Amino acid sequence: MNFNAIRVVLVATSHPGNIGATARAMKTMGFTNLYLVSPKIFPDKNAFVMAAGACDLLNSAKVTSFDEALKDCQLVFATSARERWISLPELTPCDAAKLISKQADSTQIAIVFGREHAGLTNDELLRSNYQIIIPANPDYSSLNLSQAVQIITYELRTKLLASSVQVANNNLATVEAVELFYKHLHQVMLEIGLVKLSRPTKALFQRLRRLFNRTQLERRELSILRGFLTKVQKYGKK
Amino acid sequence: MNFNAIRVVLVATSHPGNIGATARAMKTMGFTNLYLVSPKIFPDKNAFVMAAGACDLLNSAKVTSFDEALKDCQLVFATSARERWISLPELTPCDAAKLISKQADSTQIAIVFGREHAGLTNDELLRSNYQIIIPANPDYSSLNLSQAVQIITYELRTKLLASSVQVANNNLATVEAVELFYKHLHQVMLEIGLVKLSRPTKALFQRLRRLFNRTQLERRELSILRGFLTKVQKYGKK
Repeated sequence: MNFNAIRVVLVATSHPGNIGATARAMKTMGFTNLYLVSPKIFPDKNAFVMAAGACDLLNSAKVTSFDEALKDCQLVFATSARERWISLPELTPCDAAKLISKQADSTQIAIVFGREHAGLTNDELLRSNYQIIIPANPDYSSLNLSQAVQIITYELRTKLLASSVQVANNNLATVEAVELFYKHLHQVMLEIGLVKLSRPTKALFQRLRRLFNRTQLERRELSILRGFLTKVQKYGKK
Repeated sequence: MNFNAIRVVLVATSHPGNIGATARAMKTMGFTNLYLVSPKIFPDKNAFVMAAGACDLLNSAKVTSFDEALKDCQLVFATSARERWISLPELTPCDAAKLISKQADSTQIAIVFGREHAGLTNDELLRSNYQIIIPANPDYSSLNLSQAVQIITYELRTKLLASSVQVANNNLATVEAVELFYKHLHQVMLEIGLVKLSRPTKALFQRLRRLFNRTQLERRELSILRGFLTKVQKYGKK
């Protein structure tokens, strides 16, 4: 695993100062790839003031959509301090960093941070394979955004530098390919009558997303699953 | 070791905003004892703005001298990103936290953070038992003060709580139930013509087993998958 394969994705950040402080936190830990999804105010003087010696990260930051930010990633981690009704597999920053340190150098990894107050939506969370929960004081768990980035990049740096042995997995499917599988799955669920367009069955489908995201689908597995779905469609039309 | 026996000592901080951000960082990790040695500007509005929900720590902070701040402590840790001509025994944040977690509850411990730009003087450093070095990017190691506090209090919290028992996931499906799902899946694969009894397709099926085993299916997920398979069977017989 190399530092350059990891990107930090900030979603709809309100305060440009937090974007700058995040850039500084990242750079002190050796990370450079910053993606900004629909920032409220950017570029902005406050961001550059707070970035201090990390203004280069702001200059090279990619301002983009949520989909584009994750498009070529194989592994997506959402960070959250909150518990949700829909819970992804939860990891501590330490365990997440260990898991990431074992990925192949070519695996593209995104760490997604939500809005300052509202965090990530359920739909955004469900695009992730894992959720990183920073163990915080239950009476006051409100970490500043850049502080959360600092903790996680610190753990990543520590674990990436500590790991010597690397387990290669060049076979992971891309987020884009997995999304196409979900579309196909949804289509088949409609065709076989498991769900109806008229009736909201979001919860059911979200559970399936959660299941398959957790498992980190490989390319070969994805093609088996797609083949299965195609056969099911033909089965009903025979 | 208890959280209350640990104090954070900030020496001659220039920016009140950093004092506030430090209070917030401490409180999110469950620490409350803040000592301010000769702060440049304090109290100040900026400190309270940056403290957010941790203003109580600013109100109870002790503004004092370096000697007074350490007076009743048994163990003092200095933090520094720099190397010095005079080197104390060096610890990573992780190792320092482990060492602290093994102390008796009654041991009073200080973690000392220096000036934003100049750090600690050699005389101040020499009052410490150990030096904590945060492993940072050698090309840009300039962590914001409150970010350094965040990393170290995070490590302390993690290691102090490490003995707590892990929560078990009672929702996992039994091995027996998962085996019934595999049988059902195999049956459906035969029915839709994805595999044939006459042709060995063990490898394909093993891949699917590997996929679902890896994901540790929950009861609810298993019932969704079984429902899906049943619907597929009906679909072909309609």
